[in-house]
Amino acid sequence: MNLIEQFRARIKKIKAFVYLLQLAGWDSNTEAPRKSHRRRGEIISEISKELFFLQTDPEMIKIVNELYGKIDELDDLLQREVKKAKKQLDKIINIPQNEYVEYQRLINDSQIIWEDAKANNDYDSFKENLAKIIEYNKKFALYYDPLANPYDTLLDDYEEGMSMKEYDKFFNALRTDLVPFVKEVLAKDKPSYEKFINDNFDPKKQEEFCNYLVDVFHFDRNAGLMKKSVHPFTWNTSPEDVRFTTKYLENYVFSSIFAAIHELGHALYEQQVSTAYDDTLLNGGTSMGIHESQSRFYENTIGRSKEFWEVHLPKFKELFPEQSKDMTVMDMYRAVNKVEASLIRIEADELTYPLHIMLRYDIEQKLINNEISVDDLPSLWNDTIEEYLGIRPNNNSEGVLQDVHWSGGMIGYFPTYALGTAYSAQIFMAMKKELNVFELVKNNEIEKINLWLKEKLHNYGSSKTPKELLLMITKEEFNPKYYIEYLKEKYTDLYLK
Amino acid sequence: MNLIEQFRARIKKIKAFVYLLQLAGWDSNTEAPRKSHRRRGEIISEISKELFFLQTDPEMIKIVNELYGKIDELDDLLQREVKKAKKQLDKIINIPQNEYVEYQRLINDSQIIWEDAKANNDYDSFKENLAKIIEYNKKFALYYDPLANPYDTLLDDYEEGMSMKEYDKFFNALRTDLVPFVKEVLAKDKPSYEKFINDNFDPKKQEEFCNYLVDVFHFDRNAGLMKKSVHPFTWNTSPEDVRFTTKYLENYVFSSIFAAIHELGHALYEQQVSTAYDDTLLNGGTSMGIHESQSRFYENTIGRSKEFWEVHLPKFKELFPEQSKDMTVMDMYRAVNKVEASLIRIEADELTYPLHIMLRYDIEQKLINNEISVDDLPSLWNDTIEEYLGIRPNNNSEGVLQDVHWSGGMIGYFPTYALGTAYSAQIFMAMKKELNVFELVKNNEIEKINLWLKEKLHNYGSSKTPKELLLMITKEEFNPKYYIEYLKEKYTDLYLK
Repeated sequence: MNLIEQFRARIKKIKAFVYLLQLAGWDSNTEAPRKSHRRRGEIISEISKELFFLQTDPEMIKIVNELYGKIDELDDLLQREVKKAKKQLDKIINIPQNEYVEYQRLINDSQIIWEDAKANNDYDSFKENLAKIIEYNKKFALYYDPLANPYDTLLDDYEEGMSMKEYDKFFNALRTDLVPFVKEVLAKDKPSYEKFINDNFDPKKQEEFCNYLVDVFHFDRNAGLMKKSVHPFTWNTSPEDVRFTTKYLENYVFSSIFAAIHELGHALYEQQVSTAYDDTLLNGGTSMGIHESQSRFYENTIGRSKEFWEVHLPKFKELFPEQSKDMTVMDMYRAVNKVEASLIRIEADELTYPLHIMLRYDIEQKLINNEISVDDLPSLWNDTIEEYLGIRPNNNSEGVLQDVHWSGGMIGYFPTYALGTAYSAQIFMAMKKELNVFELVKNNEIEKINLWLKEKLHNYGSSKTPKELLLMITKEEFNPKYYIEYLKEKYTDLYLK
Repeated sequence: MNLIEQFRARIKKIKAFVYLLQLAGWDSNTEAPRKSHRRRGEIISEISKELFFLQTDPEMIKIVNELYGKIDELDDLLQREVKKAKKQLDKIINIPQNEYVEYQRLINDSQIIWEDAKANNDYDSFKENLAKIIEYNKKFALYYDPLANPYDTLLDDYEEGMSMKEYDKFFNALRTDLVPFVKEVLAKDKPSYEKFINDNFDPKKQEEFCNYLVDVFHFDRNAGLMKKSVHPFTWNTSPEDVRFTTKYLENYVFSSIFAAIHELGHALYEQQVSTAYDDTLLNGGTSMGIHESQSRFYENTIGRSKEFWEVHLPKFKELFPEQSKDMTVMDMYRAVNKVEASLIRIEADELTYPLHIMLRYDIEQKLINNEISVDDLPSLWNDTIEEYLGIRPNNNSEGVLQDVHWSGGMIGYFPTYALGTAYSAQIFMAMKKELNVFELVKNNEIEKINLWLKEKLHNYGSSKTPKELLLMITKEEFNPKYYIEYLKEKYTDLYLK
């Protein structure tokens, strides 16, 4: 075998291991029985050891470094892939095997501990694991680059090319331009749809509506499925197996609907990646930020548009005739775009959402840089959310324990949510130049929007960087002004006119 | 590491690979989307290659052979384990790696092809895969023992120590003693509950009843779950993760109920194995026959007893008031024990069931020994079932395509179903000497029956052979007379008095 064939064979084997570990993750997060976690943890340790070896053994180091040494001779796709491989290798090469395995194990254990902690509002039972997770993340970041701020390294893990410097600039723009606007909208008297929104909606009927949405958005059911879980997420191993979850709350029907549409955005992206990348490092969405741009676009720009409810309110009324008998399209449009200070990020409205992210960005920075400890976290969380939104969590389950991310070792991930939402506004501007987007939504032709995104973005998988994609699609670099303009226009129209 | 530690470490790693492959199997058989199978097949090939290497590389051969060489120095449990390891090794050591991998791939592909073939009543689309599966099984058996009849080797795979000679004896006893009795019962005028049995039962309510049964049988929900699938099955990776499926037919409520109880029998066995065997070759039920003795015991001896319906008919009536309004306990007892010539094995009654197995045993023997080809199969199947039961399938979906086993590479498995049922009658005789079984059933105290089985049988896992277990529990060797007596007594009482 020549060098490239060796590289291909090794990547293929690594991907097979990753595939099975991913499958275990899907199972753990959707249906695995509680007691299975003990042994599963042991299995995952064992396999992680093998995977670590495959990724870092002298043979692999030799292959990657030799290819990297003659990168200019490779074709574009292979160049991109070898660069990714080199970076991945450098990220773990200095991690001692036992630490890597212990960390995998810790992450596995922490899932169930977090679930229990959240269910029982018991932060103390989770905080030791959280402290360890933070410690490992910091340590691993410093192994990669001892001179960089470890949070910069982590940020780059989730969004290639991003650092605190750029995020600070972005969040400062939001703080300056958007926050006063949000306060203005919050202060305004607005119609309340509280009774409707918190009415009782049979979860079985909610599931029926979500199943209807799966088809409205032209999700390929032969290449995926929808299920339920505690925390909605999207999972994929290839464009031919993309799964997502939503959750059903009896007294908050929008939770299942918008979680489903949000995850459908992620899922459609993954289904439309070229299968040519399956056994390469170029498969799947290119970054968390670009991924989030897709989920937020489907959820907010489409799912919370007036046109969307013009066509889908009848189905909703068919399933929930009692609850929705007085609701007009305009009522529904306002109800799904209700703006209020709220505690739970994934249920926050489009306008206050970035404040939830700013909070997490601030906290992660401080945690990684030792400015605070896990003991300070609940009160800092509660104080900050009160400062931003004027409301305070009653308990840690609706505060610091609400998100799955940290228990899964994902630190540096949150900022991509706000960034992705901003990307989506910029991409939407480009899309509107070529498509009559809301007309398509109104005609129930979302497949044409999917197709545009497939051609411009989805099919590329990870073969382009986020920055390259944004430039290709929008002809300019990232600019938060589109996001701010989009929000101001929509919410002025809704509430300030 | 000393030799034993090396052995332990290697077995642990092998089990980790097997675990993840099992998980992929569970997923494939319950929810994986159709298009996922292509790539999954590739992944499974890749991992199977690794597993094959772990099981057969020179290091493993050396460890096992060295331990086997000084087997008398080892403790009892380790002796048993090393003997199993040696046998497993000998079973695959002569299989060329590429054949092994191709076979795994074939099995993976065949699942979906069989599913489609069954759904579309299209045997031709499946028969080539079936022919290949048979060819591989024969070839692999001959690699192990070129002098033995390959079907003997396959039979031993599923039931340690069993061969055609012993099965012939067993089936001949049934043929001589039982078949005339079956014909007598079939010929007898019996009350028909057809309208009730084939009434319309909402699958959601059926699921509710099955969920009720899960608790009646004291299945540990924290260590497992129930789901649905095309063909009911039980799956486990350890006593702490045991899952089973059932299926819901709108016009045949007994299908879901008795499939659920049957699988609960398998599942309870697995949940009660000692966790001490988790990372050894002694985990899980000891053989297919002993496993089937448990599933059949719970399904037939308990689930089809009068006492069972005395306590659970009220719940059934609560869920299906309309359909069951005229049903007394005695009616229900007769309805669940209806005897008739029928086509589908898993829906056959307790009395005609062994005839379905005899058919498969005859056919497998002939297929493996080249007396027939896959082309002859549909007509041979139909002719034989007509000869035994006087009825003929209308299509191959209710004939040769009905069972999942062959598509999964399981040849030599079927006979264990009849054998296991016979074991169960013998074990039941022993149990009755110590427990007032039907009194416990009537008092809804099945947990006490579970406990007896745990102590006498389940907890041992595979640390004893089927023959050892049977001797320990019943104080005698396998004797089919208990099975024949049990059936004659029950069905004489029901229909010939």
